[in-house]
Amino acid sequence: MTSNREIHLASRPQGWPTADNFRLVETEVPTPGPGQIVVRNQFMSVDPYMRGRMNDVKSYVPPFALDEPLDGGAVGEVVAGGADGISVGDTVLHGLGWREYALLDGRSARRVDPDVGPVSAYLSVLGMTGLTAYAGLLDVAAMRPGETVFVSGAAGAVGSMVGQIAKLRGAGRVVGSAGSPAKVARLTELGFDAAFDYHDGPVRDALKAAAPDGVDVYFDNVGGEHLEAAIGAMNLHGRAAICGMIAQYNSAEPPAAPRNLALVIGKRLTLRGFLVGDHGDLREQFVTEVAGWLREGRLSYDETIVDGLDNAPDAFLGLLRGENLGKMLVRL
Amino acid sequence: MTSNREIHLASRPQGWPTADNFRLVETEVPTPGPGQIVVRNQFMSVDPYMRGRMNDVKSYVPPFALDEPLDGGAVGEVVAGGADGISVGDTVLHGLGWREYALLDGRSARRVDPDVGPVSAYLSVLGMTGLTAYAGLLDVAAMRPGETVFVSGAAGAVGSMVGQIAKLRGAGRVVGSAGSPAKVARLTELGFDAAFDYHDGPVRDALKAAAPDGVDVYFDNVGGEHLEAAIGAMNLHGRAAICGMIAQYNSAEPPAAPRNLALVIGKRLTLRGFLVGDHGDLREQFVTEVAGWLREGRLSYDETIVDGLDNAPDAFLGLLRGENLGKMLVRL
Repeated sequence: MTSNREIHLASRPQGWPTADNFRLVETEVPTPGPGQIVVRNQFMSVDPYMRGRMNDVKSYVPPFALDEPLDGGAVGEVVAGGADGISVGDTVLHGLGWREYALLDGRSARRVDPDVGPVSAYLSVLGMTGLTAYAGLLDVAAMRPGETVFVSGAAGAVGSMVGQIAKLRGAGRVVGSAGSPAKVARLTELGFDAAFDYHDGPVRDALKAAAPDGVDVYFDNVGGEHLEAAIGAMNLHGRAAICGMIAQYNSAEPPAAPRNLALVIGKRLTLRGFLVGDHGDLREQFVTEVAGWLREGRLSYDETIVDGLDNAPDAFLGLLRGENLGKMLVRL
Repeated sequence: MTSNREIHLASRPQGWPTADNFRLVETEVPTPGPGQIVVRNQFMSVDPYMRGRMNDVKSYVPPFALDEPLDGGAVGEVVAGGADGISVGDTVLHGLGWREYALLDGRSARRVDPDVGPVSAYLSVLGMTGLTAYAGLLDVAAMRPGETVFVSGAAGAVGSMVGQIAKLRGAGRVVGSAGSPAKVARLTELGFDAAFDYHDGPVRDALKAAAPDGVDVYFDNVGGEHLEAAIGAMNLHGRAAICGMIAQYNSAEPPAAPRNLALVIGKRLTLRGFLVGDHGDLREQFVTEVAGWLREGRLSYDETIVDGLDNAPDAFLGLLRGENLGKMLVRL
């Protein structure tokens, strides 16, 4: 084996993170103890929620520690050690990304079948990303056939799944917002009924034009102006699944909040925040249904792949700037 | 019969309403047609939601019309006409307050039993007010025994019911906010575990002291700073029933919104607006349970009664300024 490399959090970002907040550290490839495995990571995920973990604030997901490796979703091949049901040569999904070799307890890894699709899919459409979209849309927001769905950040990994799953589950109309003409064009290819670039004017106006009969379900990845516009557009008994608020993750100031929140009373709206970790009970149903759509060619997913661990910080920064189409991944 | 008097909306308030927005108009006592009844109103209700109806904005409750009588909950005696199951001499609950004599279709009135309690109770504890508290707490927010409940505007008609029902249904701790020392003292008498005057400092600090282990259910009558503080204090999987936002009804500017709304994600909070009209299915259960508590002397309710239709606008203005303890009513 060669040496190992990992990315540490060198300092906590104030506002937008920069390359200085990260440090590439050389270490040794670890040796497994009893019940442990060593995984050579093939892909690691960078996700918007990681920005929150870089702040030193009490939260229900603990913050990253300074001068320690970051972590997050990763998939790779077991190269040493072993555990109940996991052997050298297996492909596993686990939570110790941001490093080339991961040492972990076998019980913290889940074997995946590399023959179902490319292993990267377990970090995107078949993984946490896909389940986030599935659970948020169908469980948290309880979308019903015939309803109008609005998704912000719709060209991202989660958003593009939300829109497609909505159509496949019988939504009457699906509208997405994104941050570039190319992304808007991609949404149309993916089957969205309408899409707009939020740089082109007030979100409220664009949403009114795209969903003239109002919105029943809003899947929020963005927050801020998008959330306010969605509350304004929502129909009676509308539901919002609040998944992320990327518009404010890098704000040093308290963010803009929806000034029209009182509308939730007269319109009897429900706004519900969620984390995918609460919805593991849906995983089996999710994998069955989504894998079926993939086999039938009815569901597409995009990946934006960056090569090399040393480029992982850049991949993350690019994600925050919206440079990805679909899932942003680092190939190691 | 004598002449009739009613209160019209003379002009739409900008910000805080004043006496000039109302006009006392003399008319004739109406004559019932087939299936109609004439009710001599004994009590009429003034409620915070009426402020919203004075604005000419599209909403799910239509605005009051200019130069027409206002309306709202009232109870009185049938003095003329008749309809299926309703005869002269009956006491009925209906929706045409703000006038001394009401003409209405018999199907729009509901007979009530004046022997169960004072007829005013059908406008407060046994009426829409009580059902609002009951449905919001137990259905919308789904309070469970042992939980900590925070109610804003807790000395008001709805708030004081919420706190007491919470205790009677097994809440672990009930905290209320109110706008004067006398109201705070009354909350303690009503069995609240802690209460504070929101004028005494930041709501956030007072709430932290009153509910050191956080809040599971927030019943919002106030909005603004109270809602932000509640979101900050809420525990994992907390639920907010959004009933009213009286802090902003008279604001000419867009109101302050909760700047910490992103916390709904990590804490998996649910914010749900509601109107009592959607919860009629609970009425029978509500009346049975609440009437039982009243008989057993386990539930108290306050009424602030103003005499005379000409004083109804003052009663309404006093309500918006928080001059009431419990339900604000006008005796005609």
